[in-house]
Formats: sequence, C-alpha cells, structure tokens
Amino acid sequence: MDFAPDATASKHADLMRDFLEDCVYPAEPVLRREVAQTPDVWSLRPVVGLLRDDARERGLWNLFLPGEHGDGGRGLTTLQYAPVAELSGRSPQLAPVAMNCAAPDSGNMELLHEFGTPAQRERWLAPLLAGSIRSAFCMTEPDVASSDAAGLATRIRRDGDSYVVTGRKWWSTGAMNPDAALLVVMGTTDPQAARHRRQSMILVPRDTPGVRVVRPLSVFGYDDRDHGGHAEVVFEDARVPVENLVRGEGDGFAIAQARLGPGRVHHCMRALGMAERAMDLMGARARQRVAFGRPLAAQGVVREWLAESRWTIEALRLLVLKTAWLMDTVGNRAAMTEIQAIKVAVPGAVQQILDRAMQLFGAAGLDDDEPLAAMFAAARALRLADGPDEVHRASLGAAEARRTATPDEADALAP
Amino acid sequence: MDFAPDATASKHADLMRDFLEDCVYPAEPVLRREVAQTPDVWSLRPVVGLLRDDARERGLWNLFLPGEHGDGGRGLTTLQYAPVAELSGRSPQLAPVAMNCAAPDSGNMELLHEFGTPAQRERWLAPLLAGSIRSAFCMTEPDVASSDAAGLATRIRRDGDSYVVTGRKWWSTGAMNPDAALLVVMGTTDPQAARHRRQSMILVPRDTPGVRVVRPLSVFGYDDRDHGGHAEVVFEDARVPVENLVRGEGDGFAIAQARLGPGRVHHCMRALGMAERAMDLMGARARQRVAFGRPLAAQGVVREWLAESRWTIEALRLLVLKTAWLMDTVGNRAAMTEIQAIKVAVPGAVQQILDRAMQLFGAAGLDDDEPLAAMFAAARALRLADGPDEVHRASLGAAEARRTATPDEADALAP
Amino acid sequence: MDFAPDATASKHADLMRDFLEDCVYPAEPVLRREVAQTPDVWSLRPVVGLLRDDARERGLWNLFLPGEHGDGGRGLTTLQYAPVAELSGRSPQLAPVAMNCAAPDSGNMELLHEFGTPAQRERWLAPLLAGSIRSAFCMTEPDVASSDAAGLATRIRRDGDSYVVTGRKWWSTGAMNPDAALLVVMGTTDPQAARHRRQSMILVPRDTPGVRVVRPLSVFGYDDRDHGGHAEVVFEDARVPVENLVRGEGDGFAIAQARLGPGRVHHCMRALGMAERAMDLMGARARQRVAFGRPLAAQGVVREWLAESRWTIEALRLLVLKTAWLMDTVGNRAAMTEIQAIKVAVPGAVQQILDRAMQLFGAAGLDDDEPLAAMFAAARALRLADGPDEVHRASLGAAEARRTATPDEADALAP
Amino acid sequence: MDFAPDATASKHADLMRDFLEDCVYPAEPVLRREVAQTPDVWSLRPVVGLLRDDARERGLWNLFLPGEHGDGGRGLTTLQYAPVAELSGRSPQLAPVAMNCAAPDSGNMELLHEFGTPAQRERWLAPLLAGSIRSAFCMTEPDVASSDAAGLATRIRRDGDSYVVTGRKWWSTGAMNPDAALLVVMGTTDPQAARHRRQSMILVPRDTPGVRVVRPLSVFGYDDRDHGGHAEVVFEDARVPVENLVRGEGDGFAIAQARLGPGRVHHCMRALGMAERAMDLMGARARQRVAFGRPLAAQGVVREWLAESRWTIEALRLLVLKTAWLMDTVGNRAAMTEIQAIKVAVPGAVQQILDRAMQLFGAAGLDDDEPLAAMFAAARALRLADGPDEVHRASLGAAEARRTATPDEADALAP
Repeated sequence: MDFAPDATASKHADLMRDFLEDCVYPAEPVLRREVAQTPDVWSLRPVVGLLRDDARERGLWNLFLPGEHGDGGRGLTTLQYAPVAELSGRSPQLAPVAMNCAAPDSGNMELLHEFGTPAQRERWLAPLLAGSIRSAFCMTEPDVASSDAAGLATRIRRDGDSYVVTGRKWWSTGAMNPDAALLVVMGTTDPQAARHRRQSMILVPRDTPGVRVVRPLSVFGYDDRDHGGHAEVVFEDARVPVENLVRGEGDGFAIAQARLGPGRVHHCMRALGMAERAMDLMGARARQRVAFGRPLAAQGVVREWLAESRWTIEALRLLVLKTAWLMDTVGNRAAMTEIQAIKVAVPGAVQQILDRAMQLFGAAGLDDDEPLAAMFAAARALRLADGPDEVHRASLGAAEARRTATPDEADALAP
Repeated sequence: MDFAPDATASKHADLMRDFLEDCVYPAEPVLRREVAQTPDVWSLRPVVGLLRDDARERGLWNLFLPGEHGDGGRGLTTLQYAPVAELSGRSPQLAPVAMNCAAPDSGNMELLHEFGTPAQRERWLAPLLAGSIRSAFCMTEPDVASSDAAGLATRIRRDGDSYVVTGRKWWSTGAMNPDAALLVVMGTTDPQAARHRRQSMILVPRDTPGVRVVRPLSVFGYDDRDHGGHAEVVFEDARVPVENLVRGEGDGFAIAQARLGPGRVHHCMRALGMAERAMDLMGARARQRVAFGRPLAAQGVVREWLAESRWTIEALRLLVLKTAWLMDTVGNRAAMTEIQAIKVAVPGAVQQILDRAMQLFGAAGLDDDEPLAAMFAAARALRLADGPDEVHRASLGAAEARRTATPDEADALAP
Repeated sequence: MDFAPDATASKHADLMRDFLEDCVYPAEPVLRREVAQTPDVWSLRPVVGLLRDDARERGLWNLFLPGEHGDGGRGLTTLQYAPVAELSGRSPQLAPVAMNCAAPDSGNMELLHEFGTPAQRERWLAPLLAGSIRSAFCMTEPDVASSDAAGLATRIRRDGDSYVVTGRKWWSTGAMNPDAALLVVMGTTDPQAARHRRQSMILVPRDTPGVRVVRPLSVFGYDDRDHGGHAEVVFEDARVPVENLVRGEGDGFAIAQARLGPGRVHHCMRALGMAERAMDLMGARARQRVAFGRPLAAQGVVREWLAESRWTIEALRLLVLKTAWLMDTVGNRAAMTEIQAIKVAVPGAVQQILDRAMQLFGAAGLDDDEPLAAMFAAARALRLADGPDEVHRASLGAAEARRTATPDEADALAP
Repeated sequence: MDFAPDATASKHADLMRDFLEDCVYPAEPVLRREVAQTPDVWSLRPVVGLLRDDARERGLWNLFLPGEHGDGGRGLTTLQYAPVAELSGRSPQLAPVAMNCAAPDSGNMELLHEFGTPAQRERWLAPLLAGSIRSAFCMTEPDVASSDAAGLATRIRRDGDSYVVTGRKWWSTGAMNPDAALLVVMGTTDPQAARHRRQSMILVPRDTPGVRVVRPLSVFGYDDRDHGGHAEVVFEDARVPVENLVRGEGDGFAIAQARLGPGRVHHCMRALGMAERAMDLMGARARQRVAFGRPLAAQGVVREWLAESRWTIEALRLLVLKTAWLMDTVGNRAAMTEIQAIKVAVPGAVQQILDRAMQLFGAAGLDDDEPLAAMFAAARALRLADGPDEVHRASLGAAEARRTATPDEADALAP
C-alpha cells in the first residue's frame, strides 16, 4: 500500500495547477462579462475558445479518455487522471470544457470510443475529440423515474432502413447549444424484452427533422446558458438511418451503465475540486473578515466547520482514488459498488461544505461575485443526476446485507 | 393553556385560504409568463396589481400592522396574524406583496408608524399603506459584518439644515424597483459614541441627487426581478433635510432592533407556509409517482422524510405562536430570546424540508416548474438575513448559560 | 390560544419543585450508597420509602391518574399533570417512583382503572394505588418484533375455569423486584382471529406456579436493580382463574393501545425533565469549568450546544403540551398521531442533548457521579420501548401522505 | 499510489482472522461467565490467560510495537499493523489484551521503549513485554481540563535522591487491577516554566507508600472489571528514587505527545473493528429478523443505514491507513494533523454506526447478550479520551485556516 501519487499523475497535476492560475481563474470574470453582454446566446463564449487553445498547447486536452487514442490525449489511467479532474472542478464552468473533458461530451466520446462503429467514430468521435462540435445525452424523461430505465417511454422503432424516434426527454444537458450537433438518445426498442434488454442507444443528428428543442430548464435560478444549458427535447418521428444505432437493439442499458460509471467518478473528482476551492475561499474569508473584534478564524464554530470539512474531503478523496484504482486494476464492473458509494457520498458531503462556505461569506455567498452558490447548485444537482441518491443507497444497502449472507439468505434478498 | 385559535384568527385564516385558492395560485403561472415577457422590468407586474385589488376587497390588506390605523388594517394581534402570515408564505412571491405585507415595506411601515413624525407619516407612511409607492431598507454593507452594527461605515453628517449621507450599501431588497420611492438608510452619525448610540436612521427619497443604484445581486441565480430585486446602492453626498431623521441622532440601533423583531417573526411564519406548501407537494408526488412498481409513498425512506418534516413543522409552529403570544402579552423586548430562537430554528428546518422535497421531485424539483428551488433559495437566504445564524446562536447560548447563574457568575459572562 | 398554565398546573408544579429541592435531590446520593451496600437487592431501598411518605403528605401521590379516584389522586387533567411529570423526570430514578407515578405501575393502574372488573380493582388496583405492592407488564418477546403485536408467541389457552399461560417474555420492567406481586401479561388467545383480535390481557400473580423469573437484563451496563430491573420471564403452563382475564378474549390489542398512549406521553414529559436537568448541569459546568483560560461558556461551540438544546426543548415541550391538550379535549384516540410524533421526536432529541452534556462534562459525564450517563441510557431505551422509532416514523409518514389524498389515493396507501 | 496491502500485512491479517474465529469469539461467553462468577475481581480472568498463550503461539504477541525488539514482536510497520489492530477491535474486551496490545500497557511499553533508561527498561519494559505484569497511565485529573496539560495540579517535587508525588488522578485505566504493578504518572515539576516544559513523567510502583487507589469509575454502567477498570488514584507524598524519572524534568509534555500519537491511531483502528463487527451483526439481523412480513433487510430505512455505514467505514479506514503510512514515511510528528483528524472523525462515526446497530437489534441491542452496547460505551468514551473532540476540532480548524495563509496572516492566528 502506497499513498504517494506517481510521477505522471504529479506532472499532470502540476500542469493543471499552472493552467488554473495562468489561464482559468483570470478568465472567470471575463466569462461573466461576456455572458452579461450576450444573454441570449447558448454557445461557448469567446473566452472559452481561447482557453481551449491554451489547454491543447499545455497537453491538457482530452485527458479524460484512458489509453492511447491519437488525438492529443495522453493515455492516463483513471488514477492518474483523478488529480487533474479534481483540479478542473475548482473552476467548474470553465476548466472542464476548456480541456474538452466536460459532461456530456466526455461520456459521449467514451461511448463512441468503446461501442461505436468505425463510421460512427469517424463522423462523430473525431470532431468531438477535436472540439469542433459538441453533443448532448438524452436519457431522462419527465414522466418516468430516471432511476428506473426499464420504463423509458421514448420509442425507437425500426422502419425499413431507418429507426424512428418518438418521445419527450428533458434535462438533456448541453442541448440548448446550437453547436451540439449530436444527440445520443436512449429509448425503448422492445417493451416486451427482459427489463434490461428493452432499451437501445441511437445517434440522432440535431438537424434531423422531428427533433425539437422545446425550452431550457434551470437549476435553482441558473440556466447554465454559457455552455448549452439543460433542454427539454421532443422527438416527433425523428428518422435516422439504421447505421446510427449504437451496437445492437437491446444493448442500450448495458451501454448506459458503461457510460455512467466513469462519468460518475469524474463528477465526484470535480466535486472534490469544488470543495477545495470552497476551502481556500473559506480560509481566506476566515482570516480576513473581522466580527466583534476577532477574525472569524478565531471563532470556535468556524474552526469546527473548517476541521470537519477538511477531514471529510480527505477521507472521501481517498475513497474516490481507491475506486479509480479498482477501475484500473479490476475493471469498472468490479468497481461498481465503490462507484455507487462515492456517487452518493461525495455530492452530499460537498453540498454541506458549500453550505458552510456560503454561511461564512454571509450575503456575499449567495450572489455570483463568489462561485459558491453556483457550485452549491451543481453539487445539489449531482444528488439527482443518474438516479437519485436513494436508489443508490438502497442498492448499496442490499449489497451490504448480502455481503455476509449464506447462499440461501442471499437468494431471498432482491437487489 | 389553550391551543385553539380564536374566532378572529380562524376567520382571517379562512379568508386567506380562499384568497390563495381563488386568486393567488392561479396567478402564479401568469406571473411567470409576464416576467418572461418583460425580463428587464423590476417593478410589480400587472397580475400583482390585480391581486392587490382582490386582497383589499377581501379585507386582507395591511394585516401585518397591529392595532387600529384607519387604513383598512384590521387590528389583529400578532397571534391572530400568525396563521394569515403563514398562509401567505405558501406563495411567497405573490401573496405577501398582494396583501401589502411584504418585506421590506412592512418593516418600514412599522418603523414610520412607531417612530415617525406626523409629517414623515403623512408623506411616506400614507402612500405605503395605500400601496401607491414601495420602499427599501438600506442597512447591510459589503465591508462590515452585518451582525456588528457598531461598525457601519456609511456616514450621516449634519451640515446646517441638512444631513449628508455617504457610503455603500448592498442587499437593499426592493431597491431595484423604480417605484421604491423611499430608502430608509441606517448610518453612523457619531463614531465616538457608545457602541449602540453611534447610528441613526434617515429617510432618503430615491430621487435625491447622489443616490445611485449600482447593480442587482442574486440569490442562487434568482434576481427576484419581479418585485424589486436586491440592490447595491451608493450614496455620494446625498443631502436630505434634517427633518428626514427618524427620531434623534443615536437612536438608529434601537429603531433597527424594534423594526427587526416583528420582521423576523413574520419571516418565520411565512417560512412555515413555504414548508407546508412543500408538504402538500411532497404528499402528492409521493402518492402519484411510481418507481420500481410502488408509489414513492410506500417507501420507508420517503415516509421518514414526511414524518420528520411534519413533526418538525408542528413543533416549530407552536414555538412561533408562543413567541407571538409573548409579543402580545409581555412585549417585543421581553420576547427577544424567543424571537431570536425561532429566527434561527425555523429557516434551518425549512431549508432541510425543502431539500427533501426537491429530492422527492427529482430533477423536476430543481427547475421552476415547481416552486421548490426558489423557496429553498429564500429559506437559505433567511439564515443570513438580519445577521447570520451563528451570531444568534452564540447570543442564545450565552443567555442559556446565564439562566441559572449566580449574579457573580452572570457578570463574568459577556453576552 | 393561550400559553399560560392554569392555577392548578402552576400550583402542582410549585409543589413539585419544592419536593425536588427539599427531598428528592438530597436523596440521590443516599440511594447510591444504599444500592452499593446491598448490591443483590431488587426491591425499593429504604430512602425511597421515606420519599413516598413525603410525596403523600405533599399531595403528590398518584397524580398520573386523571379524574377523581378517592385515593389521594387530585384529578388533574393530562395538561395539568404535564409540568409535574416533567419535573419528576429531573430525578428519574427517584421522583416518579416516590410519587407512585412510575412505569410500569402507572400504566397497569390505568389499565385496571379503565378496564378492570370491580373484583380485579379491589384485589390489585387498591394496593397498587396505596403503594403496598408493585407490578410488571409482560408484553415484549425475544423472538417477535415488538412492534408487530399480531405475532406474539405467548399463548393463553382456556382450560375449564382457568387460563393457562405459556411463553417467554423479556424486558418485563420491574419484574426482578420480589414485591412486584402482579404480572400483567399479553398473549395470544386465538391465532386465527383478525390481526388485532388475536391477543388478550391477563393478570398473573407472581406466585403462580409456572411463573419463573429467569434473569435480569441490562441497559448499557445498568441493571436498574434499585427498583426492579428488567427481567426475562418464562411462563410454563401458569394457570390462573378465568376471572383474571381483563375484559374479553381478543381485547388485548385495544387494551394495550389504550394503555400505551398515556404512558408514551408520560415518558416524553419525563424525558424533557431529564433534558432540563442536563441543561442546568451544562450551564453550571460551562460557567465554572475553565479551559485554555476561558470558561467553557465563553466558547462558541458550547454556546451553540446550549442554544440548540434550549430551543429544541422549548419546541418539543409545546408539542407535548398540545398533545396533552388534545387528549383532554378530543380524546386519546383522536390524538394518536400527535402521541406517535412526540414518542419519536422527544427521546431522540433528548438523547442528543444528553450526549452534548456528557461531552461538556468530559470523563465526569461518563461516570455515575453525574446522572448524565444513566439518563442517556434511559433516553436511548425509549427509542425502542413500545416499538422502535422506525415503526412509528413509517406510520406517521403514511398518515402524512394520506393527509391531502383523494379517497382513491388514500385507499391505495396501506398504513 | 497502490491500495493493495503487502504480503506481511495480509499474512498477519489472515493469522488474526483465524485467531478470532478459533479462539477469541468462543472465549467471549466464557469471559461473561467467569466475570459473573467472580464479580469482585479486577484481574484478568483465566480465559484471558489461555488466549494469551494462543496469541503467543500464533505470532500475534506485542505486534503493536514497531521495529525489532527481541521479544516475540514482529517488527511490523504501522501500516502493516493496521489490519491486525482493526481486527482485534472486533472483540475489544478480549483480543487486544490477549495479544498484549491493549491500552494502557501498549502506550506505556512504547514510552519505555523510546524514552526509558536501560535500567527502567529492564525493570519494567521486560515484564510488560512478557505479559507478567500490567500497568496504568495516570494523567487525567478531576479538576483540570484534561486537554490543557499546562494546568496539571499533581506535583512532582525533588527531595534529595527522591521525587515526591502528590495529587489526585482519575480515569487511570487498568489501575484497579492489582497486577498493574507500574503507574506511569504525569505531574508538574516546575509550574513557572514555559507551558510545555512544566511537566515530567515518572514511574511509580504500585506498592509505593502513599499510593492509594480510591475507587472505580464507570462508563455508562460498565466498570470494565474484567481487566482493571478505571480508577481514581491519590498520591499522598509518594516517594520514588530520582532514577524513576523518565528522561529529564520538563520532558513530560513531549513524552506524552509522543505516547499519545500511536495510541490514538490504534484506538481508531480498533474502533473500525468494532464497527465492522457491528456491520456483520446488522447484516445477519437484517436478513433474519422479520417484521410486518418482510425481513428488515428489505426495508428502505435499514438499507440506508447499511449503505451509509459501509461507505463511512471504507472512507475512514483509508484515512487511518494513510495516516499510518505517513507515520511510517514522514514520522509521527509530521503526521500530527492526520492523527488528530482520525482521532475525532473515527469514534464519532463509529458511535453512530453502533447506535444504528442497537436500533436494528431492538431491546436486544441494549443488553449484553450482544456486544453492541458495550462497544457503544467504548466508542463514546473515545470522544473524550486524550482530550475531548472539541479541542482537536479547534486545533484542526486553526491548521486549516493557516494552510493557505500568508506569513503575516499566519502569525495573527493563534493555534
């Protein structure tokens, strides 16, 4: 057992720290100004384009994708990527997208990389890896518990050489962005099949007739319009060639699971970065703000917040890193329990840390002069993304109950 | 001891329930549309004007102001007003303002009613009670702990027959509204005086030269632009006649304390109304939403949320009502400890209930199709308004430590 | 609505305060000594006998029993009894038993008072009211979820003019005391009947052949041997006359419910008294203990503990009092939801307050020089007595989900 | 970074698991019987002696002591010892003492090993390592905040060739055991010295005239009489030769800090073992106990308990292991912040897990048929041992506030 990061991880973390200091933090107020000046635009703003050039030059492009892939990606392991991903979370609106590591593109690229045909990869993966287009992932539906994939109401019907997609999705992150040329859509091909064989995944170009982006949704009062928002999207008999199916009919659930695993881990890493940014801000505030004649840092309650927040981050980071290590050594599937655990544990803890940070900043913590309220909203949303916490807790609890069960007892326990 | 509300309270609660059902709830989507159509407007929207007419007709106008005041107010006691105020919190953006009971106007009216000269009351109180103008309260400053009034940097200097106001305020709620004709400003007249005699309160017309509304602030992305937002306001040698001082120099702290007491209680009452609205929504969602083959209401974790939320509301409501009863029977000053207790206890609990409600609604709880995220933001802000929770907790803890102290011990304990 | 106690309640609370100061607190160290000297005795110690004489003289005897009953009881309402019961909880090992208001005797007396035949009342109720015997209540079984009364394994079979009781009970509080002459036993008479008609309640004299007290049980190392402990009791064909049945066959569940209601409320009242005792102790400790040059009461974290504990007690006491008022005005059955709510809410909160108190006392809080650890154990046990919290939470949550349901929706929701 | 344990750690963990299954668990009921039969004995019971022989034979003796020491110890690193120590916590009354790794002996042996003179080591360390005597550590005093070592009232005065010890200690764990031949006592030699140079550490044989063991103390209702209890000890001019001083005058604080570091880590490891034992018990109970027709493991609330408990243990274990790794690689002093963090984080979390386990077991969880209540008491006590949580939290919070401070800011922040 060894808790020291290896040289590759350390080097990339150093690169990332420099990138934040040199490029990303200075770009934050610029983004705010650009958004204020173009309130109706959903595309990336100019400052992001400049940052993307910087990231490419510094070797911080597409690092999310493990292995060699001939496009500037560095072939990091998940464990090596972890510190980079965490650091990118310190500026969640800018750094991930600048590095072409932002959801939902990163997940879609993984999906195409792992499951796409050569033709699919050439048409969609190449421009995504190059950053010349963006994409959206359309899974969640308004009328179905998103945790219960078996019930997806969107239909994908075979009709000759085409598939016809019909249904209503929402929370399609990024889809308000007109540059999101690709919609990856999950829907039901065979409602009579076994629960986890009903769904398929299909690639729908944004300009397909019948695709209609209905409206933006917001998270608290944020519509995330600086890079694509969250859309309600209707598919009214949207017809695409059969070649657009990813893998075969019925493979949708398995593909989604494969796609969500790394995505969840990346979310957790970035959430820890948000928490660390909050810790820095809290520390500075606590040292500099005086109330009743003493700096806040001299007050016992503030010290408790700092202490508990610190050890919570340290413990959860180790759990995230161990999960990454498991993914690298035994595979994503064998690491499923750990992935599920951090998926729940991290966002909840980070939300609480951000709540404390906002409290320490007083009214200043509510407004967008500080990044805290926006990061709180992001952490809060993570407790619902990919299924609410409760579904994962129940599943983890069942796994724990089975851990020491006799075979007979285990049979009696549904997952 | 008797826990039954009296006839006056019951009657007004019934009136209020009808008003909500008949007028307010149907107006909620209308307000959303009107705001969407006029995104740059900070005044009240037309639908609010119609609601205000309804409220006047139904005898639900100015009920916040205790005693007889010849303007349609009904002379309710604080205890009788409590159920009305709570019910108004069920639609926090519409009902309080429709009834002319919204902060900061209500607090400013109380202030003028209690401390204003006849001339001040004629010029400002009368149109406020009539609803023909609105107002703002300018106390919080960016560079001073808002809980530490002794440090206010805004100066109010006497110069002949004028006072000259200089300083920077923020979180001046309502001040973005061009109809907020009156700014009630707290500042320092004598920095050498005893801590609580340094401040004075002065009436500054919005159109006074030197008054500059700098920018809006937001709460979790919400700018509350439907009725006046939260402004940063600069006073650059704004000159007003000496007659605009409220009471005498040095009376500012005492006036502020008197103003804040009822305001805090009203905030708590309305916060309970938000929680009750969330309970209704949660109940409906839990009954109607099915996941994994069972309604959410059949799931143990959801039942726990409902149970804990319910008894928490019941217990805290009783504490709020007892506080109101104390204000009516022994006076606001004697009820100070209880006011402080509910000021902290209620918003924190309501925030947690709203967090659960959002979780139950899934992604739908984050967007503004439901009122939950906006109510969460409002409850969260209450934990900072009028001084952060921690200041009040420390003060309450000191009071508790003194409760059973000998006189010598009590002397040794600073408040 | 009126939050002032009436004259009767105030008078009895004053009597009770004097009794505590004059008699009970001074008796606490005496009891400790007497127990240390007679470690193998399970009966009441001499000092308790003296206290019982004092309580009788002061008119503090049998106050738990509402209405007139010609035995020194004063006919208090539940609401009037509340402050007395709370105060008795400040010395939980001594005061309730001194006043003949301790569980399980009080519940057994209520049961006999309400459901007993004249003969049963003469033989058992009279000496219990007089304090010349004690009793135990035998409901909980080792192998059955105590919340699930339908499954009780103890059988009560009719055999001619007798009932024959067979089964194993545990947590029969008081039964180690040889003076507990009466065991009130719940068992199954008809396992085929409807769920809540299977059980009956029967009076079993301790000296009945076949009754065997097996062993004492302990709560966190405490065996409560000063007044009867908690016993495992085996009934091996224990035969009693048919006249010993309380009411009819199948009435056991209803009787148990009727018995448990007031008992739960009394437990809550006393638990608040434990919390208040802890508050006094915490206040004194915080004022007098110095660490790092300042009294603990000057430290922010301690102040937060005191503040949160204080308002929690205040809010929950009001909920308990309102429940008592409902019991007096609409009846125990109509108050069932409120009884269930306080049954869960109060012990959990009191446990947390006691945990803080122990922390404030450091190691001294763990030992029995202070009453904190023993009170903690008692509060902890209350979270399990009469069914674990979770059963009540689930039931309350279902009730809340039904609150706003349409009739159709309500039908679909099992309680 | 590598999360796999090395071969030495794995081998010892395997040995330890076998030892638990083969020897320790079967001995638990034996110990209970032996204690019941000899209630007044404070020495180790016969069954423990047999276990000690087993442990020696299996190579599980004195493993707590790092490095080579020629007495059967294996020279494990702290990181290698961690799994062994954790496993020993699964049977906290038996396993650590059986392996001669129990507090306070282990800490006293470390102290003698690191700071003792050859003569001191020969006289005391050798028999302690051999297990032929036991020892106690006398630091805590009734009248002084135990976290504030500068205030120790016990005096150690030089008088010719002797030191004379005078003072009152309590919570001297193990000192009720007549076989505890050595008392390691901390007291003040020079009250005028700098805060951390006032104290010295001295070896006082139990049979020294003037040493009086006054009485046992209890934790909740447990007096831990099976292996030495917790004593109040008075030193009335107890005179020992000057050679009994450990190191020099004024070195006491530094020695205590050095002694406490590993002790705290070992406590955390064992606490995790208690939690794991509780997890196994909870799993079995949840699978086997049926309420309302379903096993508890099928109920959502129980699953949440299992899930949260599981990931909390996993995350905290990693933090403990990283701390152990730091101790091995950069030294105990450099790992001080991490040691302090786990010292607070682990016992609090384990207490909560044990509370859940007790709740799952119902009344059975309160009694000593299950180990839960006793483990709860032990975990609760850890939140106070070596200074209450709050002192460590404040210190950690100050460290965090300094983490990103400029030098000037850091100077302004007292630790």
